[in-house]
Amino acid sequence: MTNYVIGVDLGGTKIFTVLADMHGSICAEIKVPTGAAAGPEKVMERLVNSAAAVRQQCAADPRGLLTVAVGVPGPELDAERGLVYFSNNLGWYDIPLKEILQNELQVPVYVENDANAAALGEHVYGAGSGIDDMVYITVSTGIGGGIIIDRKIYRGVSHGAGEIGHMTIMPDGPQCTCGNTGCLESLASGTAIARAAVELIEQGRGKGILQAAGGRVEDVDARAVAGAAQRGDGEAKMIMSGAARALGIGIANIVNIINPPLVVLGGGVMESRELIWPEMERELRERAFKVPLQNLQLVPAALGSKAGALGAVALALQAVKGEM
Amino acid sequence: MTNYVIGVDLGGTKIFTVLADMHGSICAEIKVPTGAAAGPEKVMERLVNSAAAVRQQCAADPRGLLTVAVGVPGPELDAERGLVYFSNNLGWYDIPLKEILQNELQVPVYVENDANAAALGEHVYGAGSGIDDMVYITVSTGIGGGIIIDRKIYRGVSHGAGEIGHMTIMPDGPQCTCGNTGCLESLASGTAIARAAVELIEQGRGKGILQAAGGRVEDVDARAVAGAAQRGDGEAKMIMSGAARALGIGIANIVNIINPPLVVLGGGVMESRELIWPEMERELRERAFKVPLQNLQLVPAALGSKAGALGAVALALQAVKGEM
Repeated sequence: MTNYVIGVDLGGTKIFTVLADMHGSICAEIKVPTGAAAGPEKVMERLVNSAAAVRQQCAADPRGLLTVAVGVPGPELDAERGLVYFSNNLGWYDIPLKEILQNELQVPVYVENDANAAALGEHVYGAGSGIDDMVYITVSTGIGGGIIIDRKIYRGVSHGAGEIGHMTIMPDGPQCTCGNTGCLESLASGTAIARAAVELIEQGRGKGILQAAGGRVEDVDARAVAGAAQRGDGEAKMIMSGAARALGIGIANIVNIINPPLVVLGGGVMESRELIWPEMERELRERAFKVPLQNLQLVPAALGSKAGALGAVALALQAVKGEM
Repeated sequence: MTNYVIGVDLGGTKIFTVLADMHGSICAEIKVPTGAAAGPEKVMERLVNSAAAVRQQCAADPRGLLTVAVGVPGPELDAERGLVYFSNNLGWYDIPLKEILQNELQVPVYVENDANAAALGEHVYGAGSGIDDMVYITVSTGIGGGIIIDRKIYRGVSHGAGEIGHMTIMPDGPQCTCGNTGCLESLASGTAIARAAVELIEQGRGKGILQAAGGRVEDVDARAVAGAAQRGDGEAKMIMSGAARALGIGIANIVNIINPPLVVLGGGVMESRELIWPEMERELRERAFKVPLQNLQLVPAALGSKAGALGAVALALQAVKGEM
């Protein structure tokens, strides 16, 4: 392989690194723990080592590396300048990621919001393959989004577009991590599902959920709620369907505003598909306009946790080809 | 003038027709009543006569007409095929507008959603002049919207994008004309403002508003509410600020999802600027992300009721130049 690119998904718990040739064929991928607690310098070291490791696996000449793209969790990120103002997952404040990595790797480095990278990953390698425009929504701890228009990430004027989790759909709703109230994320994320369950338990209810969490309220998470719901627990089912309705409203808003041909849904919460999908779709169909609905495909994500790294590869390739 | 185009804003109460040369310079404009009650055939006749009248005013050769674009109120419109399925303002069902006009005028005719046309009008001739991307929101009887990306109307996959008035921001809110509940339109349009006032009056309150409407509950409209609010009526002020807050939430959602450099606000309700703007902006600033807000200009529309016709002209020119 003469020339190649490297894409990295730099997450709070793992660094996922992928090497691909100029046609986008994946040659190698590795995953290592982020070890964020050890500080940014150690994380950078692991990232640089990961890049060396995938290169070695492909027996690729170091001089063939053209560019590196890195997906990073926000929420406060200047992707254009590659500055991480604040990332709670990484515990970072004011880290000039792009600059540091360019010095280390001696090639152009592109930094992208992780949900945007995952959107591009699903677009190029996953559920959106072959379709020019799509919206990607990932529902896990938080709710992230990415908009693809004309095969490219739609970033808006200051790289802030696609924050679908932070549209208000219930003005007096729960407090969101962003400081706002009633964001989609505050109603339908894994965190929101867990919080609703804990509130129930604190009122002396939610026995089935508590049991699914091994009897420890500290261990109540979205997975425990989904587990209880799967076993038929009424309270757990109600919490899951509340989240599903909120998602349906959020997607309806996207359909009425953006009218995309495709919405791709990923993230851990969406794995409980049978608990979320029917109610979500019912609410969506009630609220979105008919013709846009008829032209909409609503599908699950295809790449799971690889979406971000593959998206970073796709981004690196677009950068090399001047298509960003 | 050798070659020219004609743009038409076909509204429920008036037909506004504009002729422009290939540089977009306006040569003539005329406004006639729509007379929708006389039926679609009579409306078509007035439209065709208006086209002839502006041509005459400019002493333009009939053979120089290259194309005509018409902005039409929906809500159910297949703009691509130029079919009006249903327009309550015009009282039309299943009118093949494009086909009829092409037969009459013997040039290509383009049909566009009226808010999209107005958005393009403000973009080319008004408040968005010189900026590539913007979102236009018109707040009058209903709430319409149009998204401009890269100097063109962003239509989505089935010409349904930009229905900003029909994003849900209060799931259990008032019934909307679209059948949904809690749409932005159901909370902040002129109709919503009037309905809130009438509800108050029916409870035996809202004396100041009723007085502003000449004592007749049938005459209570957004203008009467705004008038009472301007005279310091507390109940009227509360209704106006409720609408303002809803608008702020809607714009915050647009900012977080689309991150536009510019939002242009038009329509009759926005004319009560001092009653709407401060509360709207406060709510927006509370709910949208900081960096996108720093990159946002929020401005009043510049063209008033001419936006639609001028947008139709711009659209006709884009069609001729193959830029649509």
